[in-house]
Amino acid sequence: DLPFVLLMGPCQIEGRDHALMMAEKIAEACTTNGRRFIYKSSYDKANRSSIDTARGVGMDEGLRILEEIRDTFGCPVLTDVHAADQCAPVAEVVDVLQIPAFLCRQTDLLVAAAKTGKAINVKKGQFLAPADMWNVANKIIASGNDRVMLCERGASFGYNTLVSDFRAIPIMAETGCPVVFDATHSVQQPGGQGTTSGGQRQFVETLARAAVAIGVAALFMETHQDPDNAPSDGPNMVPVDQMQGLLERLGRIEEAAAG
Amino acid sequence: DLPFVLLMGPCQIEGRDHALMMAEKIAEACTTNGRRFIYKSSYDKANRSSIDTARGVGMDEGLRILEEIRDTFGCPVLTDVHAADQCAPVAEVVDVLQIPAFLCRQTDLLVAAAKTGKAINVKKGQFLAPADMWNVANKIIASGNDRVMLCERGASFGYNTLVSDFRAIPIMAETGCPVVFDATHSVQQPGGQGTTSGGQRQFVETLARAAVAIGVAALFMETHQDPDNAPSDGPNMVPVDQMQGLLERLGRIEEAAAG
Amino acid sequence: DLPFVLLMGPCQIEGRDHALMMAEKIAEACTTNGRRFIYKSSYDKANRSSIDTARGVGMDEGLRILEEIRDTFGCPVLTDVHAADQCAPVAEVVDVLQIPAFLCRQTDLLVAAAKTGKAINVKKGQFLAPADMWNVANKIIASGNDRVMLCERGASFGYNTLVSDFRAIPIMAETGCPVVFDATHSVQQPGGQGTTSGGQRQFVETLARAAVAIGVAALFMETHQDPDNAPSDGPNMVPVDQMQGLLERLGRIEEAAAG
Amino acid sequence: DLPFVLLMGPCQIEGRDHALMMAEKIAEACTTNGRRFIYKSSYDKANRSSIDTARGVGMDEGLRILEEIRDTFGCPVLTDVHAADQCAPVAEVVDVLQIPAFLCRQTDLLVAAAKTGKAINVKKGQFLAPADMWNVANKIIASGNDRVMLCERGASFGYNTLVSDFRAIPIMAETGCPVVFDATHSVQQPGGQGTTSGGQRQFVETLARAAVAIGVAALFMETHQDPDNAPSDGPNMVPVDQMQGLLERLGRIEEAAAG
Repeated sequence: DLPFVLLMGPCQIEGRDHALMMAEKIAEACTTNGRRFIYKSSYDKANRSSIDTARGVGMDEGLRILEEIRDTFGCPVLTDVHAADQCAPVAEVVDVLQIPAFLCRQTDLLVAAAKTGKAINVKKGQFLAPADMWNVANKIIASGNDRVMLCERGASFGYNTLVSDFRAIPIMAETGCPVVFDATHSVQQPGGQGTTSGGQRQFVETLARAAVAIGVAALFMETHQDPDNAPSDGPNMVPVDQMQGLLERLGRIEEAAAG
Repeated sequence: DLPFVLLMGPCQIEGRDHALMMAEKIAEACTTNGRRFIYKSSYDKANRSSIDTARGVGMDEGLRILEEIRDTFGCPVLTDVHAADQCAPVAEVVDVLQIPAFLCRQTDLLVAAAKTGKAINVKKGQFLAPADMWNVANKIIASGNDRVMLCERGASFGYNTLVSDFRAIPIMAETGCPVVFDATHSVQQPGGQGTTSGGQRQFVETLARAAVAIGVAALFMETHQDPDNAPSDGPNMVPVDQMQGLLERLGRIEEAAAG
Repeated sequence: DLPFVLLMGPCQIEGRDHALMMAEKIAEACTTNGRRFIYKSSYDKANRSSIDTARGVGMDEGLRILEEIRDTFGCPVLTDVHAADQCAPVAEVVDVLQIPAFLCRQTDLLVAAAKTGKAINVKKGQFLAPADMWNVANKIIASGNDRVMLCERGASFGYNTLVSDFRAIPIMAETGCPVVFDATHSVQQPGGQGTTSGGQRQFVETLARAAVAIGVAALFMETHQDPDNAPSDGPNMVPVDQMQGLLERLGRIEEAAAG
Repeated sequence: DLPFVLLMGPCQIEGRDHALMMAEKIAEACTTNGRRFIYKSSYDKANRSSIDTARGVGMDEGLRILEEIRDTFGCPVLTDVHAADQCAPVAEVVDVLQIPAFLCRQTDLLVAAAKTGKAINVKKGQFLAPADMWNVANKIIASGNDRVMLCERGASFGYNTLVSDFRAIPIMAETGCPVVFDATHSVQQPGGQGTTSGGQRQFVETLARAAVAIGVAALFMETHQDPDNAPSDGPNMVPVDQMQGLLERLGRIEEAAAG
């Protein structure tokens, strides 16, 4: 197996300058560690807890920014889609389409994403068992696209809490699809702060270490230069200036685990 | 308070004749019990477990059938929508738009449904706490529509199992919205049968009794003349010829509970 | 079936005068409603969250007080046992031995309780499925005592929260044992307040209504004249002066449900 | 920190010859890997699912066997206690007393164990949050014994299933107590086979890798020369002839993780 890839970026596209600045910092942390990365950022937060919170720059501007990042840094780019008709236009720019966890059972969205021929990263619903992802992957494969990644991002555990069940990694790997572990959404506390979600940033490294020791194809981590003031997912994003050290520590574990 | 209303019908529209036959049986059971009902049926099962299972008759035919039922039986009709652009055409026929549980956080869908001015029944996501439905209801109300019903249909409890937390009824009632209890999806065992969901039909009455004793504005129950051979949700639907007796028993409990 | 019996009393025996005062208030509420009751109170809180919290009056004094209550009010009395060697002495006084939820799998304790020949009320462990109580009941029955009651008191649901799964009532009833619903411990929030457990007293009636509408042999509810100042379980006990009204409302539901 | 210690042995003491044979195999696997181990085995399975299953050789014979193992192999020995009066006699032989998960809140047992002055390994109840173990540890420390280890062995996740929440390791480490991860009971499926518990042996290494990458003071793993025919916990024990390879792989991860 290749070393794990990173799916990394700020939760949402906050503007061109911010996105380029983040990409540069991420590129630096990854290059130093000999890691490939796919730049991830959302142009629209379509399922925010509350209607009063910011949704993002929109598709057109978002895609222009992702395109510039891809061209400037030579990295693949990823964004998430929320409706079937977004798949084709988004696929003109991005390399990987991501299916949000809440939407992982929506057949029309999966089929439309599949038909673009692009790679698809499907987040496992918080309400699904790992083995249920066979059916999800098959919806895409049966539509003629076998470039499917399956991503663990936490299972519902009582209210307002997720738990990461690491048995999900070998179970989903049995499908033959590369398995991704989303270390920052896994520490979310959905709805835990009234009109926004809380998070436990202090456990991102704990869970990432576990995933890497077990063996994953990719690690998904959202990052920001100032998470506490980010417009979304701040409580669970990792400060970008900590990424270099974190990747070093994870790299040593991966090497030992693969041994 | 008015006596509880029934949201009742076969899981999916199987054809004109079947739908009319079911509506007649439901009307009979409800009329005998002095109950109003809203006929519920889906024209598209958009989030089936597997891509190989039947999805339904489609929107156009489905709406024609629902219209005929409304005109024939004088009852309101309800169906579920899965994408923002379905809301306006569906609202030309139906009286209540229903938001599926997996989609209860999709802002665009909620707003589009709200803008039709029709009543909206939102199923609580299996991944949400009851109090999180304040934010969901507010997305609709902030869009100018306060005709919102909130529906409990089970919370994720480990894998492939739901649990009905009846504290959800008083907690959601605090929003001021009418609260619905979905007694047939609450006994689903999602993904519990490989490529379809299982169910525990034998507990529908148990849970319905609990809901009625606590007090709900409406009870949602799917029904069929032959559930074991229904194209979807068979394991949790109630045979329609048992409905009259069930409604009698529930009616006595409601009266006593309201006392 | 007979109408449901009440297992009722303050969580712990606080002293002779307090216990007699509580018994008088309980007897009054129950007699007015034509209900039989079994007086419940603990002489030792053996599994408190913290070592610094009060444990109770001890076995000798506790049994003397329970005996006086039984003689004065003519009601059966119940207390819980925590070790095998407590069963014989406790059985000399009480009518029902109760096995705490955490201890429901301890074979020696179950067998020792069984051998007293007294009725046994076993609380279902928060970590057990309802069907697992067959094995628990069989440990007692195989020891020559078939006077077993099985009691639902909530299942672990994430951390620091319980959920009441009402399917447990019919599932446990299949054993042939009378089923009890514990409406006050079911609203506990274990460990939810640091060194003590929290509770949601406001949901006791919600859950009790559900249980009665489904049908139970007995309802377990702890009560106190001043729960907010009780030495244990205050947050989930019901003020005793509210019991008369509550029993009236539940009585109407029971009658309708049995109809 | 020292390298992680192993708490290892067959679930129950099956007899002198079997115990010595197992100790020899364990000693060999550990010595080859430069690991210290504490031999673990139970003389009594006090909380079996069913009353018809084997309980073990009893305290007297069990302690004689553990003593011989300690003397023969020069390793510390550990066994579990189930009642306060067992603590003193058991402590005359063993080096570590273990408190079973179901009993981790029983104050008398914790205090009696503490008073022996021996090291205590407390399994976290399946019904407790990691932070709740502060109160458990404090019951022992307040009794004058600060040699406390806290052990994660899975949390209740729906029915008949456990989930390992690895946030528990850093949370319990904040108490200052060494943290143990029990990799074989964490894959139990309690009650999952009718009158015995099931297990998912295939995930032991997955979870052990995670724990070691995060950092634990000790790893608890039950092992047997023929798990499929063991009298208890067979489905989750690891064949002893696989231990040497497993310890090698885990050793590499530990070294990299500590780096």
